[in-house]
Amino acid sequence: MRPFFDLAITLPPQGSGDLLRTVHRQLRAAIDDGRLQPGLRLPSTRALAAALGVSRNTVVAAYDLLLSEGYLVIHPNVGTYVANLASQPMPSRTPNRVSLPDVRLNEFWRQPPPIFPGPMSRDAFRYDFRVGLPDKTLFPFSLWRRLSTRILRPLTKTPAAYTEPEGREALRVAITKHISYARAVSCRVENVVVTAGAQQAFDLLARILVTPDKTVVAVEEPGYPPLRAAFAAARAKIAPIPVDHEGLVVERLPEDARVIYVTPSHQCPLGVTLSARRRAALLDFAQSRGAVVIEDDYDGEFRFNDRPIDALQTLDRHGSVFYVGTFSKSLFPSIRLGYVVTPLWARRALVAAKAYTDWHCAVIAQDMLAAFIEEGHLLRHIRKMHKIYAERRSILKQSLDRHCGDRLSVIGADVGLHLTVELAESLQARKLALTAAAEGIRLQPLDSYATQKPARNGFALGYGMIQANQIDEAICRLAQTMDKIG
Amino acid sequence: MRPFFDLAITLPPQGSGDLLRTVHRQLRAAIDDGRLQPGLRLPSTRALAAALGVSRNTVVAAYDLLLSEGYLVIHPNVGTYVANLASQPMPSRTPNRVSLPDVRLNEFWRQPPPIFPGPMSRDAFRYDFRVGLPDKTLFPFSLWRRLSTRILRPLTKTPAAYTEPEGREALRVAITKHISYARAVSCRVENVVVTAGAQQAFDLLARILVTPDKTVVAVEEPGYPPLRAAFAAARAKIAPIPVDHEGLVVERLPEDARVIYVTPSHQCPLGVTLSARRRAALLDFAQSRGAVVIEDDYDGEFRFNDRPIDALQTLDRHGSVFYVGTFSKSLFPSIRLGYVVTPLWARRALVAAKAYTDWHCAVIAQDMLAAFIEEGHLLRHIRKMHKIYAERRSILKQSLDRHCGDRLSVIGADVGLHLTVELAESLQARKLALTAAAEGIRLQPLDSYATQKPARNGFALGYGMIQANQIDEAICRLAQTMDKIG
Repeated sequence: MRPFFDLAITLPPQGSGDLLRTVHRQLRAAIDDGRLQPGLRLPSTRALAAALGVSRNTVVAAYDLLLSEGYLVIHPNVGTYVANLASQPMPSRTPNRVSLPDVRLNEFWRQPPPIFPGPMSRDAFRYDFRVGLPDKTLFPFSLWRRLSTRILRPLTKTPAAYTEPEGREALRVAITKHISYARAVSCRVENVVVTAGAQQAFDLLARILVTPDKTVVAVEEPGYPPLRAAFAAARAKIAPIPVDHEGLVVERLPEDARVIYVTPSHQCPLGVTLSARRRAALLDFAQSRGAVVIEDDYDGEFRFNDRPIDALQTLDRHGSVFYVGTFSKSLFPSIRLGYVVTPLWARRALVAAKAYTDWHCAVIAQDMLAAFIEEGHLLRHIRKMHKIYAERRSILKQSLDRHCGDRLSVIGADVGLHLTVELAESLQARKLALTAAAEGIRLQPLDSYATQKPARNGFALGYGMIQANQIDEAICRLAQTMDKIG
Repeated sequence: MRPFFDLAITLPPQGSGDLLRTVHRQLRAAIDDGRLQPGLRLPSTRALAAALGVSRNTVVAAYDLLLSEGYLVIHPNVGTYVANLASQPMPSRTPNRVSLPDVRLNEFWRQPPPIFPGPMSRDAFRYDFRVGLPDKTLFPFSLWRRLSTRILRPLTKTPAAYTEPEGREALRVAITKHISYARAVSCRVENVVVTAGAQQAFDLLARILVTPDKTVVAVEEPGYPPLRAAFAAARAKIAPIPVDHEGLVVERLPEDARVIYVTPSHQCPLGVTLSARRRAALLDFAQSRGAVVIEDDYDGEFRFNDRPIDALQTLDRHGSVFYVGTFSKSLFPSIRLGYVVTPLWARRALVAAKAYTDWHCAVIAQDMLAAFIEEGHLLRHIRKMHKIYAERRSILKQSLDRHCGDRLSVIGADVGLHLTVELAESLQARKLALTAAAEGIRLQPLDSYATQKPARNGFALGYGMIQANQIDEAICRLAQTMDKIG
């Protein structure tokens, strides 16, 4: 191995106190510009500290930061390596591996499972099929600015106070009307609890529903990793349940499942819709076993066919369903607002858990969103985006058909913000994603949603981040990439 | 008992589906206007359902809502009663009792301890000495509106994305500069994790530090109830430690305490400052036992004497201290932004826990706050409010001295947004608060911060909600109230 200190790390004068930042930045720069290649094993902290003439703690802290940023990965009992950033395009940047655990942390948080597996690249891609993001550039921000000015005015005069943990009443009223109209969800204002996005909804539900090391929580396999993460943190016993062309295979639910998580409108990531038969079976299961269902309707506003199926929440007659909605897809994720439609028996616990966690969501954003919905802007925006996503989806399907032929097949229903494809056996999704990344195409392999082997061989193709006029070109290039490796 | 259906509840036509809301509203109205008096025992759900000719489920749900709103209280095995709202002035409205627990909830959340004990009154008080709230009416909202317009503009052009769980870099840079200047806290950008207020900081720390049913967490007695609630929810073993004129009695810490929560600048609620001797002893304890300290500096920006003492975080040389700050007092609580200055060994776990919980705080508010701090508005606002609170505090002390004489004594240091008094033995704080409430004076008895008997006999008097020119009148009336009951 080439001696590491060849990297020409320049240290500040002794005692300037900026050693950690310097070491951290220079190592990161070396990874960024390729002097440290992906897969390279790093020297031990002791060796590097000696080579640089700094304390070992400084090197430990620098490695730590790089790990938390996804630049490094740990292979337990082997060593620390430069991460392969380009190979694993991911939708966000979250710490993903833990090394050097401190005994002062509890066991789970010394080694938390990654919220989304693999480090994520922050690179911009020329053709970005990232999953789960809307096209925010088309959001009416000028209108939002005007609303902001208007909403801030009356707030000046109200005294400072903590407000309702369940969310501002005006927002809960607006949500109630919106979802009963747009999604036929039957609820009252009392059933709505406002959360910091769907992720907080999952986290609060995990808190109130899971008895650690005891409660069995059935999740879709493949499925949405951050949901699994929230329940794993609550120490649920996770039971992965297969998904077929009718959605979650309800017949495979273990008898002792007490919480069942589903994405019935548009399975994440496979895109299928839970069939009417399975919906009925799932509600039967829940009712007869005293189980609850978490219905995650993350992008159900966008349906491109004429076969709407009732939400589980609408069909439920026994208070078994928690319906989780989000404004991350219909507005934009950084607003961090979502909600739970809760059966009344769980309302008090859910509201208390929200208060324990952060008292309530920020008031200004809640009031703005309430006005945005009440004045019809949300529905107008959804209608506009519906057309845009429909066009992108349609072009995407045509392009896939034209350029890729029988090397892949589209699966799932015409719903939502992503389209799922399965690859022919001759092509490997993970390998294709790697090669495509080098061509400027970001793909999300299905195996990043899987916990069991073999994973489905394919991709989820998001169309929130790619313009209609880029799609054909992107898929044409993807087909060429297939030729190369196929 | 007078038959309950004398209340003249008018029900909507059969099948209109609004029965629950009607029953709930009419019961609430009856409590509000005094037809149902505090302490009155309600009929059983069965009896009321029969009397009204509605299903028992409807009545159960209506009681449930009223309980969650604090209008009713349960006395286990006895019955449901109308709560005594006026008697227990409280700083927020949170569900506080649980009845009718559903077995589908885990055990803790069937009966969560109240986050702040007792139901809270939402009444406006003529003289409001509520604790823990700043005077938001003096916040420069017109400036905030202009900032909002400016910050929203560039956001239009950035693609939708989840951002850093640890908080926007610009905000972390601004916080780092601010606290190193204003509080002499020594930290780097890497140490700062942005949270949804201090409450989320406590919650995340409880998650990563507590091993359920094992970790001993030492808290101040009396102390801040929402902190206890967060750690109770994580199933910590809570050890209440007494507080004397030097703050937390460090010598009384149990050997096995692994997390120690303190409010060293301004003990909540007693107002004392942790002495230099105790600070050193506390850090020694933490270092020698591998324990950590959570330093809650909730209103330390407001010091009215010239004896600043270093933050524990500043004194710490071993990475034992988590410093928690909030913008709830220096700005306003509904912004829901705070932060943790974390030692690096815990950074990754803390950031991961934040991502698991809600990904990150809302971006617009973070960017606005970053600009607000960077442009010097925060320091200017703190300076302005410092003068205002200093004046109120000084008037308050003079008035107490003038009107109440030796019936009470002021304790604690000249810091923060509240002043604490102890009452002479002849007066009972809880009884006085009740009588004062009837006179339009809201007082916060110290026993609401206590878990052990006997509690200190006194009040915390907040001056964020009362104008300088009201204070003398309020205290004069309070003295008259003392005459009545004394």
